[in-house]
Amino acid sequence: MANSKYEYVKGFEQNDTLLPQTWIVIRVDGRAFTRFSQVHGFEKPNDMQALLLMNECAKAVLEDISDVVFCYGVSDEYSFVLRRTCTLYQRRASKLISLVVSLFSASYAMKWTQFFPETELQYAATFDGRAVCYPSESILRDYLSWRQVDCHINNQYNTCFWKLVGSGMSTAEAQNTLKGTTADVKNNLLFEKFNINYNNIPPIFRKGSIVYRKQMDEVVKVEKGEVIKRLRAHIVVEHEDIIHDGFWTAHSYILAVGSKNKQQQALPRPAKPQLPSSLP
Amino acid sequence: MANSKYEYVKGFEQNDTLLPQTWIVIRVDGRAFTRFSQVHGFEKPNDMQALLLMNECAKAVLEDISDVVFCYGVSDEYSFVLRRTCTLYQRRASKLISLVVSLFSASYAMKWTQFFPETELQYAATFDGRAVCYPSESILRDYLSWRQVDCHINNQYNTCFWKLVGSGMSTAEAQNTLKGTTADVKNNLLFEKFNINYNNIPPIFRKGSIVYRKQMDEVVKVEKGEVIKRLRAHIVVEHEDIIHDGFWTAHSYILAVGSKNKQQQALPRPAKPQLPSSLP
Amino acid sequence: MANSKYEYVKGFEQNDTLLPQTWIVIRVDGRAFTRFSQVHGFEKPNDMQALLLMNECAKAVLEDISDVVFCYGVSDEYSFVLRRTCTLYQRRASKLISLVVSLFSASYAMKWTQFFPETELQYAATFDGRAVCYPSESILRDYLSWRQVDCHINNQYNTCFWKLVGSGMSTAEAQNTLKGTTADVKNNLLFEKFNINYNNIPPIFRKGSIVYRKQMDEVVKVEKGEVIKRLRAHIVVEHEDIIHDGFWTAHSYILAVGSKNKQQQALPRPAKPQLPSSLP
Amino acid sequence: MANSKYEYVKGFEQNDTLLPQTWIVIRVDGRAFTRFSQVHGFEKPNDMQALLLMNECAKAVLEDISDVVFCYGVSDEYSFVLRRTCTLYQRRASKLISLVVSLFSASYAMKWTQFFPETELQYAATFDGRAVCYPSESILRDYLSWRQVDCHINNQYNTCFWKLVGSGMSTAEAQNTLKGTTADVKNNLLFEKFNINYNNIPPIFRKGSIVYRKQMDEVVKVEKGEVIKRLRAHIVVEHEDIIHDGFWTAHSYILAVGSKNKQQQALPRPAKPQLPSSLP
Repeated sequence: MANSKYEYVKGFEQNDTLLPQTWIVIRVDGRAFTRFSQVHGFEKPNDMQALLLMNECAKAVLEDISDVVFCYGVSDEYSFVLRRTCTLYQRRASKLISLVVSLFSASYAMKWTQFFPETELQYAATFDGRAVCYPSESILRDYLSWRQVDCHINNQYNTCFWKLVGSGMSTAEAQNTLKGTTADVKNNLLFEKFNINYNNIPPIFRKGSIVYRKQMDEVVKVEKGEVIKRLRAHIVVEHEDIIHDGFWTAHSYILAVGSKNKQQQALPRPAKPQLPSSLP
Repeated sequence: MANSKYEYVKGFEQNDTLLPQTWIVIRVDGRAFTRFSQVHGFEKPNDMQALLLMNECAKAVLEDISDVVFCYGVSDEYSFVLRRTCTLYQRRASKLISLVVSLFSASYAMKWTQFFPETELQYAATFDGRAVCYPSESILRDYLSWRQVDCHINNQYNTCFWKLVGSGMSTAEAQNTLKGTTADVKNNLLFEKFNINYNNIPPIFRKGSIVYRKQMDEVVKVEKGEVIKRLRAHIVVEHEDIIHDGFWTAHSYILAVGSKNKQQQALPRPAKPQLPSSLP
Repeated sequence: MANSKYEYVKGFEQNDTLLPQTWIVIRVDGRAFTRFSQVHGFEKPNDMQALLLMNECAKAVLEDISDVVFCYGVSDEYSFVLRRTCTLYQRRASKLISLVVSLFSASYAMKWTQFFPETELQYAATFDGRAVCYPSESILRDYLSWRQVDCHINNQYNTCFWKLVGSGMSTAEAQNTLKGTTADVKNNLLFEKFNINYNNIPPIFRKGSIVYRKQMDEVVKVEKGEVIKRLRAHIVVEHEDIIHDGFWTAHSYILAVGSKNKQQQALPRPAKPQLPSSLP
Repeated sequence: MANSKYEYVKGFEQNDTLLPQTWIVIRVDGRAFTRFSQVHGFEKPNDMQALLLMNECAKAVLEDISDVVFCYGVSDEYSFVLRRTCTLYQRRASKLISLVVSLFSASYAMKWTQFFPETELQYAATFDGRAVCYPSESILRDYLSWRQVDCHINNQYNTCFWKLVGSGMSTAEAQNTLKGTTADVKNNLLFEKFNINYNNIPPIFRKGSIVYRKQMDEVVKVEKGEVIKRLRAHIVVEHEDIIHDGFWTAHSYILAVGSKNKQQQALPRPAKPQLPSSLP
């Protein structure tokens, strides 16, 4: 409605549209979470309640934005995969990032009491966000593998570290003990010194969390002894390996996109088909 | 710590650094606030409690980010001015936008009960954000004027509109009555039909809200009859005209930046001075 | 070598890196070529010599930049396809665009006399350039099809238009005659009125020009009656249909890229492989 | 005219508009000029003819683009300053860069024979380009100072280096002799060993070249003994100090821009003035 001689300042806004037809990953990262987790007494190296709260926030994002098809979370970070054909906000990076960050941050504050009924939230947990485009499904999967390998390496190290510290070492001594050790050495240390089989540690710690709309057969009714089923999608939180092909083969619908025709329609400036009839 | 063959995916992240030495404005806008305000029973055309909550969130942002020097809010939007020399997050747009949006959104959820003790928050209020650079103080001031003129025009229209609707008109009739009318006609309508002097409407509705660190003389002590004062900054919320020069002249420290030397130091890649001695 | 207190100004340069692993198309377009072609007496609607000069400039670009794998030219424009794995100039848009434009523009001036020995070059022909990323081979092919359809539609129209004008019509009359006509109507008009079979028009006019490194069997020697051949690449200029699959199936090596491993190596920040051994 | 189902590919083109109201500097740099200068027998450390050719190309750019207000050249590079209010090509970086590079490169090829009548151009000299925005006149001047200090430091070093090599040193010995020496030491070396007063070296080598439209009083006519003059602009090439204020004070019109009103009109989306009459 408003219109004034000052309106020219709108011309300074710059375009930040993300390349069409690429997978968009928006990752949120906790800001200064080392301090936040100390202030709120999070357990080391993993606080189950804090992770469950993160997962709940991710669900809120998935529920709200239909273009989000997959989420992966570890520690104080969460990655959201937006489908390749997404045209929400004309794919403007600032809009997409701020929407995800806003939903995630507000949910964290709102759901805090559910997960920490005895601990008062001292101040707002905040998250920064970024958006990255991946041109193919194969590179997108490498991105997700990167985060899960990261989860594994960090968790293995942190598990050893806090066990050593718990056993009386100083943090400097624990660091020195682990410096340069391979994964096998760390596993042996856990097993021999602390009687811990690393593979028995809860999967949520070892593999992080995935959130997606899982297609499941649902019994609709039983008619004349015949079971009538229907495919239905439910939002689930799981802790699966997403590096190898198994998960993706079993759930190929997650990254599937429609026909090529659909791709074109999904573009900001849709084509007005009019192929010349006499093309050789 | 982690390092894997998948790490190459980091190379897809694109740089979104904002031009150095320009004023950065980050504006957050309520997402689908028409619905949000209906669900939560906000008063029309202005809900005082909702505006006070917005101001409180803006204060949280100003308190947290020292580079924010001025905030202007109207309705469900808030603009944050970051000083020209800001190098926070290397001026990366996505980081700056997400930080402000995260702080604002989380604060809104956390402080809700303070302002709406009787109304349960049904779902998270979310905000999108954008960052715009302005190369000079003069253009930055035009930006702020643009928002305040917008506030004025919208508020005048909405005040008339809801008075007409309150007096029994349908929304369509009210729209028709106001279509194309000048500011004077609207003011007359308010005065003659509803006995309202527009200028007596609370300034927070007519002018929006500004938040900044106000420098004030503070009495430190009285010694031998002499009053010892000190200049101190306090965060204040006011409803002043920011279009004309008056406010800015009285508070010239708000947009002041240090010497040129300081500007250079504030840059991402600081200069290593070594001017050739024999330059003519 | 130089280093001064002024060097901080380098920090204002902004990053314009193109998304990795996408096809880059750089298109150059003649600037004000309507005037340029009039001043230099180009034939209407197509000047064979001018097109051959354009092709020669495209060859110069292909010869110089090994990442250019395919070129398509029509009228005063030329598109250059850079392979998906290209990391030349770290994929900085400004560098890539300026390199192609510089090579093309300088070649045009240098080779002018070869193609127009009797016409003096009155002033420099100039070209603007742009870079666009396409995330998949399929969309890249749609880009090339778009340009070739454009060539066809424009050429058919222009052929009719200039025949009508040549037969005595004013340009306005010719425009009116052609307004809204289908391709069939235009073909009939050419055939019935001017005895021209559109399909007999030289392919360079109807289909534009492609330039690429063609792999050809070459006889190396004949030994004991046996012909020894070797595959060799030669730069060729052709006028083929590039919309249908035929051409691309026959020359699949043009857009082929190496193994996935190679893709990763081609990235700005190459991965340092170190997959954790105990990953489940 | 053309329009097809492939046209959707236009949607992949990304916006690269430069921030309004900032000074734009486009710098072109010779590509692989070490080799180019060897192939064409340029004199070391400075080839006068090559520099004059560069200046002539810069003049061609200044003549063609009215928004270019100042050019500074040294060695194989040239910087072009576009006025702050420039809206050519809607300030799209790729268009502006390619236009300057195209003009410069084509001119270099066309004008070669004028400056090297006896040397055949072996292959096209090519230039890459970049665009950088500077938000204030003061920072723009620092940019130009940076380039001129660079010219000075490089020229002083190169003059010493080639004199030493000319006197029989190997290039490695010359490098070692100069390593870490201050400007004074270099000047002394030139004076004592080679009897060269550095300040007597031609200014074009020491200070580079500037090209601009110089406002000069011109005698229009002499009437009844009175001389009638008029201010006229002529393109000139000079070799002045542009670091200190002197030059800029004497030619303040070069960087001057019109009134504020003009700034607004120069913006991509001009304002439609309609200030509310009753603003308090």
